[in-house]
Amino acid sequence: MARNAFYAQSGGVTAVINATACGLIQAARRLHLLHPDRIGKVYAGHDGIIGALTEDLIDTSLESDADIARLRYSPGGAFGSSRYHLGPLATHRAHFERLVEVFRTHDIGYFFFNGGDGSMGAAWHLSQTLAELGHPLTVIGIPKTVDNDLAMTDTCPGFGSVAKYVATSMREAGFDVASMARTSTRVFILEAMGRHAGWIAAAAGLAAERDGDPPHILLFPEVRFDAERFLARVEECVRRHGYCAIAAAEGLCDDGSCEIGGQASGELPSHTRAGGVGRFVGELIHARFGYKYHLALADYLQRAARHLASGTDVAQAHALGVAAVDRAFQGKTDIMLTLRRLSDRPYRWEIGEVPLRTVANKEHRMPAEFISADGFHITEACRTYLQPLIEGEDPPPYRLGLPDYVRLANHRVPRRLPAFVP
Amino acid sequence: MARNAFYAQSGGVTAVINATACGLIQAARRLHLLHPDRIGKVYAGHDGIIGALTEDLIDTSLESDADIARLRYSPGGAFGSSRYHLGPLATHRAHFERLVEVFRTHDIGYFFFNGGDGSMGAAWHLSQTLAELGHPLTVIGIPKTVDNDLAMTDTCPGFGSVAKYVATSMREAGFDVASMARTSTRVFILEAMGRHAGWIAAAAGLAAERDGDPPHILLFPEVRFDAERFLARVEECVRRHGYCAIAAAEGLCDDGSCEIGGQASGELPSHTRAGGVGRFVGELIHARFGYKYHLALADYLQRAARHLASGTDVAQAHALGVAAVDRAFQGKTDIMLTLRRLSDRPYRWEIGEVPLRTVANKEHRMPAEFISADGFHITEACRTYLQPLIEGEDPPPYRLGLPDYVRLANHRVPRRLPAFVP
Repeated sequence: MARNAFYAQSGGVTAVINATACGLIQAARRLHLLHPDRIGKVYAGHDGIIGALTEDLIDTSLESDADIARLRYSPGGAFGSSRYHLGPLATHRAHFERLVEVFRTHDIGYFFFNGGDGSMGAAWHLSQTLAELGHPLTVIGIPKTVDNDLAMTDTCPGFGSVAKYVATSMREAGFDVASMARTSTRVFILEAMGRHAGWIAAAAGLAAERDGDPPHILLFPEVRFDAERFLARVEECVRRHGYCAIAAAEGLCDDGSCEIGGQASGELPSHTRAGGVGRFVGELIHARFGYKYHLALADYLQRAARHLASGTDVAQAHALGVAAVDRAFQGKTDIMLTLRRLSDRPYRWEIGEVPLRTVANKEHRMPAEFISADGFHITEACRTYLQPLIEGEDPPPYRLGLPDYVRLANHRVPRRLPAFVP
Repeated sequence: MARNAFYAQSGGVTAVINATACGLIQAARRLHLLHPDRIGKVYAGHDGIIGALTEDLIDTSLESDADIARLRYSPGGAFGSSRYHLGPLATHRAHFERLVEVFRTHDIGYFFFNGGDGSMGAAWHLSQTLAELGHPLTVIGIPKTVDNDLAMTDTCPGFGSVAKYVATSMREAGFDVASMARTSTRVFILEAMGRHAGWIAAAAGLAAERDGDPPHILLFPEVRFDAERFLARVEECVRRHGYCAIAAAEGLCDDGSCEIGGQASGELPSHTRAGGVGRFVGELIHARFGYKYHLALADYLQRAARHLASGTDVAQAHALGVAAVDRAFQGKTDIMLTLRRLSDRPYRWEIGEVPLRTVANKEHRMPAEFISADGFHITEACRTYLQPLIEGEDPPPYRLGLPDYVRLANHRVPRRLPAFVP
């Protein structure tokens, strides 16, 4: 009997995670036409893995080919994503038994988990546990994270687009501030995502091509924040260029451990959350020099900005979705797909794979050789790495002046089991 | 003898103010070819009107036609802008005498002032005063402001693009939050520009086409903020849709007069500036319901986002630059050009004019019929007004993955006068 596939989005969504879903569903449809006995439908978990627990499955076969194609250019998570941890078997046995029950009932034999490093660990754990419970699955991890902090892959789908967004935004705001600096704003700060790694702030550095171009200062979590050195650099910058443009990663640290601020709304104590890193450094500057500053918090705008997605990123996200199905069909399991760089310029890449068990919790921070000696900018080596990831434009269609994104109908597979509350 | 033109950008810059400069310089070049005896060169003030006082004039005739054409798609103010007030003649006589001296020395007979309502008042004042001092000028005001708060014109160049940006950003972030709401962020707030008028926040409302689409709540300076009514609406929204997306104008008021927060960095006392309106309403929500919220401050990104400019806006900005020269050449003076709407759908418009003296300080807030009865959204009448302003795409060229904007050489006209410190 044909085995159906379960696809779940996990963790923070990106501008291109739906491109992966698009590739995966398209590939599964093609294979189903050729081998209806071996692969059935793709069921997506509503709100990710939670949908498997609650038997809340979306039957993607009821969407038209045209709407599935539109997923390629629609941001967010089309079926809902979640930050949900299954927990260990010892304490959460009922959860795993429920998964077995749901997967058996709906003939699910393929499990595609589209997430970051935590999700890859979860997928590996799930694969082992379900086999232990007598329902082995074909498990394929597909990387996704704007933070670019997954080890073992050249980059992660989602990052190239946020990188293009922050570099473009920094360039544009730089033109603005440069025009206003004489009588108004002297300092502009863009707070970028990146709790533990400075990849996104680094990407803003691509906006600076010539000496003096903004951004003038990048602040990375990898570099201990030294207020005096920073202030001296800001002052020098204003003296030389008339203004100073800064990109700060939200996870900036003033010692080896603690975050200064961060856009962690509703999570951290209010004194840390009230302004975040951007506000913190802005107030430092204002207090010392009296410069008027402006702060932009791109927040979700940066990771949802499908209108400005990187062509490279979209192509990779889509190709990974296709490859996930192909490899599962070839009998591969317990792997995470990776992107492998074959050359920088021209940028050539291919899809690789690594065992899922080797992926979990290996954080990929910026290497020292990507950060300039003074700690305030990126090196040529970093540019060489980042540059191809932001290249290419792949704009969505527009209708009435706005991007015309798809909202799927998301028809549910009829429930056949009693309710379960996770 | 041919009279030269002086062009100054004034106040906050926009994504399309350089499109106006482009049209103006192109039109002046064409007329100069035909009538070299009547119109000479276009000199741009470095940092706006300050450049006239300091005899810091940029000779735009030294830029290539190709680079001037590139101004059409480059954000910021190509020659620098400024927030500088000339003051009244009685107390600032030396300033006006200096302007006469500079304009006489450089044969300047045309004065083009590209700014908001304050700038139009200044232009009128300058025109009268210089005539009084024996150097009458042809004075043409060209509107520009992202805030859309200029009376007597259908819209202002700059607004359509910021409107397209916030509507697009809200739609994209809405897709993101909708996918994450079950286990993570329940509330998303986009703080938009707009100290005194809610036009930009209103434009975010265009992202919502169907019932339940984000944004669910718009907060306008025109509507007194009532925390209890607001919180009730947020709760209802989360109950119905699983999440709540809000666009808040920075100038939100809790009584008829005072701003709650606002992105007025480095200007207001720190207790008001620390978080701004977005943070204020986010904390209110978090305190009452415990919902995790995320906040985006688009700040300069919104008004510099040339990559996402409205085609309508670019066309109007450019046409106003052309028309300014044409009307000056026809002998018109002391006017501000306007945009006149001839029909909504299809949108047809033409360029009109009003006497400069009638423009100053007539603030154009959102009319009551544009705000829904509950005060939290826009009406159909408002949509009909806003819709054409965001339509059309006019993307810049890209190079190496980023918009390829022009930085002019900005060669200075040799100084012929002693230094002057304003």
